[in-house]
Amino acid sequence: MRPFIRDPIHENILLQDLDISLIDTKPFQRLRRVKQTGTVYLVYPGANHTRFEHSIGVRHSAEKILDTLEIHGYEVAEDERNVLLAASLLHDIAHMPFSHSLDIVDEEEHERLAEKVILKTEISDVLSRYGIDPHEVPQFIFGSKRPLSDVIRSQIDADRLDYLQRDAYYCGVAYGVVDSRIFMEFRVVDDRLVISEKGIKPLESVLFARYSMYNIVYGHKTVRIASSMLTKGVLDAVERRELALEELLTLGDEELLLKLKDVDGLAAEMASRIRDRRLFKRAYFLPWDETPSDLMKLALTDRMSLTRKLEDEISNEAGLSGEEVIVDIPKLPLLEEADVKVLWDGRVEDFRRVSLLAEPITGSLKRSWSIGVYCPEGYLERVRKASSKILR
Amino acid sequence: MRPFIRDPIHENILLQDLDISLIDTKPFQRLRRVKQTGTVYLVYPGANHTRFEHSIGVRHSAEKILDTLEIHGYEVAEDERNVLLAASLLHDIAHMPFSHSLDIVDEEEHERLAEKVILKTEISDVLSRYGIDPHEVPQFIFGSKRPLSDVIRSQIDADRLDYLQRDAYYCGVAYGVVDSRIFMEFRVVDDRLVISEKGIKPLESVLFARYSMYNIVYGHKTVRIASSMLTKGVLDAVERRELALEELLTLGDEELLLKLKDVDGLAAEMASRIRDRRLFKRAYFLPWDETPSDLMKLALTDRMSLTRKLEDEISNEAGLSGEEVIVDIPKLPLLEEADVKVLWDGRVEDFRRVSLLAEPITGSLKRSWSIGVYCPEGYLERVRKASSKILR
Amino acid sequence: MRPFIRDPIHENILLQDLDISLIDTKPFQRLRRVKQTGTVYLVYPGANHTRFEHSIGVRHSAEKILDTLEIHGYEVAEDERNVLLAASLLHDIAHMPFSHSLDIVDEEEHERLAEKVILKTEISDVLSRYGIDPHEVPQFIFGSKRPLSDVIRSQIDADRLDYLQRDAYYCGVAYGVVDSRIFMEFRVVDDRLVISEKGIKPLESVLFARYSMYNIVYGHKTVRIASSMLTKGVLDAVERRELALEELLTLGDEELLLKLKDVDGLAAEMASRIRDRRLFKRAYFLPWDETPSDLMKLALTDRMSLTRKLEDEISNEAGLSGEEVIVDIPKLPLLEEADVKVLWDGRVEDFRRVSLLAEPITGSLKRSWSIGVYCPEGYLERVRKASSKILR
Amino acid sequence: MRPFIRDPIHENILLQDLDISLIDTKPFQRLRRVKQTGTVYLVYPGANHTRFEHSIGVRHSAEKILDTLEIHGYEVAEDERNVLLAASLLHDIAHMPFSHSLDIVDEEEHERLAEKVILKTEISDVLSRYGIDPHEVPQFIFGSKRPLSDVIRSQIDADRLDYLQRDAYYCGVAYGVVDSRIFMEFRVVDDRLVISEKGIKPLESVLFARYSMYNIVYGHKTVRIASSMLTKGVLDAVERRELALEELLTLGDEELLLKLKDVDGLAAEMASRIRDRRLFKRAYFLPWDETPSDLMKLALTDRMSLTRKLEDEISNEAGLSGEEVIVDIPKLPLLEEADVKVLWDGRVEDFRRVSLLAEPITGSLKRSWSIGVYCPEGYLERVRKASSKILR
Repeated sequence: MRPFIRDPIHENILLQDLDISLIDTKPFQRLRRVKQTGTVYLVYPGANHTRFEHSIGVRHSAEKILDTLEIHGYEVAEDERNVLLAASLLHDIAHMPFSHSLDIVDEEEHERLAEKVILKTEISDVLSRYGIDPHEVPQFIFGSKRPLSDVIRSQIDADRLDYLQRDAYYCGVAYGVVDSRIFMEFRVVDDRLVISEKGIKPLESVLFARYSMYNIVYGHKTVRIASSMLTKGVLDAVERRELALEELLTLGDEELLLKLKDVDGLAAEMASRIRDRRLFKRAYFLPWDETPSDLMKLALTDRMSLTRKLEDEISNEAGLSGEEVIVDIPKLPLLEEADVKVLWDGRVEDFRRVSLLAEPITGSLKRSWSIGVYCPEGYLERVRKASSKILR
Repeated sequence: MRPFIRDPIHENILLQDLDISLIDTKPFQRLRRVKQTGTVYLVYPGANHTRFEHSIGVRHSAEKILDTLEIHGYEVAEDERNVLLAASLLHDIAHMPFSHSLDIVDEEEHERLAEKVILKTEISDVLSRYGIDPHEVPQFIFGSKRPLSDVIRSQIDADRLDYLQRDAYYCGVAYGVVDSRIFMEFRVVDDRLVISEKGIKPLESVLFARYSMYNIVYGHKTVRIASSMLTKGVLDAVERRELALEELLTLGDEELLLKLKDVDGLAAEMASRIRDRRLFKRAYFLPWDETPSDLMKLALTDRMSLTRKLEDEISNEAGLSGEEVIVDIPKLPLLEEADVKVLWDGRVEDFRRVSLLAEPITGSLKRSWSIGVYCPEGYLERVRKASSKILR
Repeated sequence: MRPFIRDPIHENILLQDLDISLIDTKPFQRLRRVKQTGTVYLVYPGANHTRFEHSIGVRHSAEKILDTLEIHGYEVAEDERNVLLAASLLHDIAHMPFSHSLDIVDEEEHERLAEKVILKTEISDVLSRYGIDPHEVPQFIFGSKRPLSDVIRSQIDADRLDYLQRDAYYCGVAYGVVDSRIFMEFRVVDDRLVISEKGIKPLESVLFARYSMYNIVYGHKTVRIASSMLTKGVLDAVERRELALEELLTLGDEELLLKLKDVDGLAAEMASRIRDRRLFKRAYFLPWDETPSDLMKLALTDRMSLTRKLEDEISNEAGLSGEEVIVDIPKLPLLEEADVKVLWDGRVEDFRRVSLLAEPITGSLKRSWSIGVYCPEGYLERVRKASSKILR
Repeated sequence: MRPFIRDPIHENILLQDLDISLIDTKPFQRLRRVKQTGTVYLVYPGANHTRFEHSIGVRHSAEKILDTLEIHGYEVAEDERNVLLAASLLHDIAHMPFSHSLDIVDEEEHERLAEKVILKTEISDVLSRYGIDPHEVPQFIFGSKRPLSDVIRSQIDADRLDYLQRDAYYCGVAYGVVDSRIFMEFRVVDDRLVISEKGIKPLESVLFARYSMYNIVYGHKTVRIASSMLTKGVLDAVERRELALEELLTLGDEELLLKLKDVDGLAAEMASRIRDRRLFKRAYFLPWDETPSDLMKLALTDRMSLTRKLEDEISNEAGLSGEEVIVDIPKLPLLEEADVKVLWDGRVEDFRRVSLLAEPITGSLKRSWSIGVYCPEGYLERVRKASSKILR
């Protein structure tokens, strides 16, 4: 009998022995301790779900997409199927604690780390035992085995379709809803994964769901404050060589916070504050359309050093230490869904050209970008003034 | 504007300033780190919900019951209402990490600890600031202010009505469903909280929901194994004076496990196993109807020492150390709901007399009680034989 | 591409060409006009769902059960599979308007009529066209092709599993919930359809769901009154030869009411009252445990003539015409689920022997049986007195 | 005790005696026989919900909005509250059978008819009995008592908020989702009903929900075909004076179809086809961006006569009778939500100016407008050619 796992999003998820063996590894069990939505639980108390259940959900969603492809005549070899499903399960294996809330490595670094976890731990043995070349798995995870890798790594993939629903379910918000029909509208045409014409409206709704979830959940002011505090604390510990990047990959959320507490100084302060929810407040807010263009350019090209520089300048101006001011310059929120390829009148087209909404939703989301300046409650007025002077 | 919190079970929960002040205390924030259903997450991966959101849900459910009482003419004084609502929010404030999975203090001890948390921490100050006598709160929590305290502490109360739905939601099982109508059927008659006649069928369904959740979730074999392992590890640390009871009340789940890991020995072994989900297996199983009556008597009256004794005897017989065998003697699962008072034909009656199902459901649940013997996978056969010899 | 239909219970139901051809027939389209739960909509306004969508849902549920059987090694020949699925779709094809609310034909008569609809309409042609012998379909529907016919016609079958969920969904009540896991626990053993051991608790919940739905929905006082009025009106029309039994099978609910209105007299009166919801009231109520045993015996063996006799006697006694008094003697509510066979410890056992709840739930439901006497509001007192005299 | 009604969307809807008395009138009971979404049930089999339950849901939603206004300091006099709630319940009392699928009266005519139903039936007596001036009710329904009437008749009102959720629930599609938070964001400012700043994102989601529901449900090709057939059949009967406009207001859906069947000719043909789901097929399709501007102008200003003219010309060209060709020129789909006033930075602003999505969503929906030409299956080719010639 095939083993199965109960899941609130997908009911009973049927698995195979390989899946169970992968799930039973230590790196995979660690995912139970990494919240799917980082600091979101500080605003939405139900958001305690983890990368663990999400990963299993992605495995399930990937299988549904594969089934659709096969119904429509695209043949997937047994071994390709197996490696893709393993990759779907392992796609988040190298996620940092607090998921995207902790913003300290770039994509390239992340891929390097993920490859290491897959190749240098017991995961590699499990894969080999089931006849899968461990080196192939990262290729699927990072999208270089197209069209099949598109199933788990592309503008519209099993990953997004799982997390949108899942995050909405646990947060208890009526967004993030995904029309199950979209799973039936995947096709492979000219060696690309595309969405059929009947899937275009469902696809618009996925785009809108991502947009809404960003506005209401992922980009919530308090979530951003807590995430910035966390990042600042971790960076401090890393710089003081109290914490190594690769060590982070062995930690869960709470373990990281406890470790930071032991490190003392800024890192400890931030960790304590997050655990007790004594968060910084927002002193200043520079929206997209008021950001001077030279500042914007820097923000997009050199986020990290700009952050440092502004934190120094503002804290200086406010007569505070650099530890008491956080400048939060988020990445530009992108909706890659807008770049999906769709079938339109029999040919492959850009979704962006076919849907009148792709561009505006993408644009509207982009405009929700803003720079925030945060500090302890007592300094709000000082920091507001200093920020206003420095940032305008 | 009244503050509110989003909750998947109750949508938007309206709160008052007092609630927010209580929630902002350190002991209350700790509840974010205590899973509502202990080790259940090891079987149902979605079960990461915590005492934090449950407590807020109980506050909300209590208010709904109060509203019903008032619609039906029972007047609740403003200050009584306030203290009851504060008590509803704080009713789990002294919960151990891992909730009921960690089975080391009795009810009396628990009440003593809870009183201490309420009276000796910042919570006391917050209550006083809002004109509530902190000493009254434990009286409501532990049920000595009837009939009002029945709203949060009786056979059918805001606590159960919240957790049944909540646990089912996060586990993703179709049990634990509560007919919202029951909230409209609470009455006070002769200074007792009772359920009106129209609430009898909904009440049967609550009883059945508890029964099903026990069978499918709370009493799941693997949940019991993990809980026994945890309890054994913690007891070990407590006995070696590496951990004090009152310290436990300051810890969250993961913090406890990390602490146990540092303690070494059995405690560390159990903590590591739980974190990596390398669980003991069940070697032996003695069901209710095969348990000799003298053994049963001991099991009910002196659980703790019987456990020790059997663990010694079985491990001895099997040629193993006492650390390698766990005997799990659970409390008898009770359904206090069966003792609710209901209105029947205008008079107050025992639910048990009015419903033909109260007795059988209670009885059937009781019979799901069993003694389990667990050990590492390699010793299953040895331990099975030894258990069979000792327990029959 | 396989056609599919959207359904709130089962999401996207995949169908085959045969299904579409059957659905497109006139007798099947008539099912759109037959409410699934008869007069329940007069109490639960959402209960407008029909035999049409239910039939498609049963087809879907049957396929899920077949898939489970095949996963567990029971081979189903292609042609058997086809005929079973066709039968699942057609199992309600000969349902009277208002489903079970209209209580005028016995099981034998019903089977005769169903056979006629399948063999004498375009349905027969469609079946033949797809290589199915139309004569086989009724054998599956009425359960003589075991074990396969058990999938749609047995104590626990695709029919029940669909309607419990569906009725609860449309009524908006938190009962009728079915654990999806049960679909994975069907097996064929010794040429019988049984439920595996892991399915026993889910089965208990199905039993309890049926019990609750009967109490809260199907047997609701007002539902019974409206159903009795309908039955009395139709019987009147049939006796006056204004309506033939077989004609009924061509009518939908509203069409029947309009037809009765044209017939004048009692039939018209009842139809108007139902359409405007000017219902009779309950004047008298004789519960199970107060029903004299000789009366009970008659009630079980000769419901129809006992009804007539009592209506005559009571109306006489009350000085009213026989048209103004309705005596409602329902069938004894049975929970056939209690007779399911289950796997227990490797052997086939009666569910009733394995579950402590089967008997009490069945018994409790039986005791909800009662005789009701209904009349227009103005005569309540008179009829109450007369009933009391005649029935005690 | 306040009476209540169970509803799948709003759980338990508390009502008052006035509501019950209004619901018990004949014109209100008729709403049970008018499907909420007209011919949608021919595509989504679950869509059998009616104006009856929707009306009760609007009453409930209106009360929720009133409660929010009062929490935020806007005082509503008791008698205004009563008349508004009565109006919310009665707002659809003069709906034609098949709701918007039957497209034969303009707004002005509709208001005249509604006024008549309210003033000239028993409804008037019920209102008077409860101290409500019946003449005031239509003023609330048709929006001339601002700001209060905006609660049930404006760009974002109790009506829309109910039907979006309800239609999605019964169709079983994951669209039409409404964030319950929006109910908490209504305010009255400068005697206008506006949405507060925190309600802007929820409002965008309502806009998107309407857009999606239009694309996927209300404007579904097959729904449009069936609606056009119905309209054509009724117009035929009306012209032949077999059916009077005011009579329509006394009929339910099925009653209308049966009546048409008796009328013979085109009306009977259309009614039979709809009942058996033997629908016309789409022969031709002229999308928004290919419609010549002079044709578009006529389509918007003189829909009715343009329809006739085109039907004559196309059928002539195709050598068919006018009865065999249907030209379907829908109204331009508008999203009035885009015109809501919102609070932005403390002042009242147009939603359209504040949201980057209002315009594109509205525009994209408008572009889904198209002219369709339908005919029996056998004539598809002929009609396609004729349409192509006439319409280009």
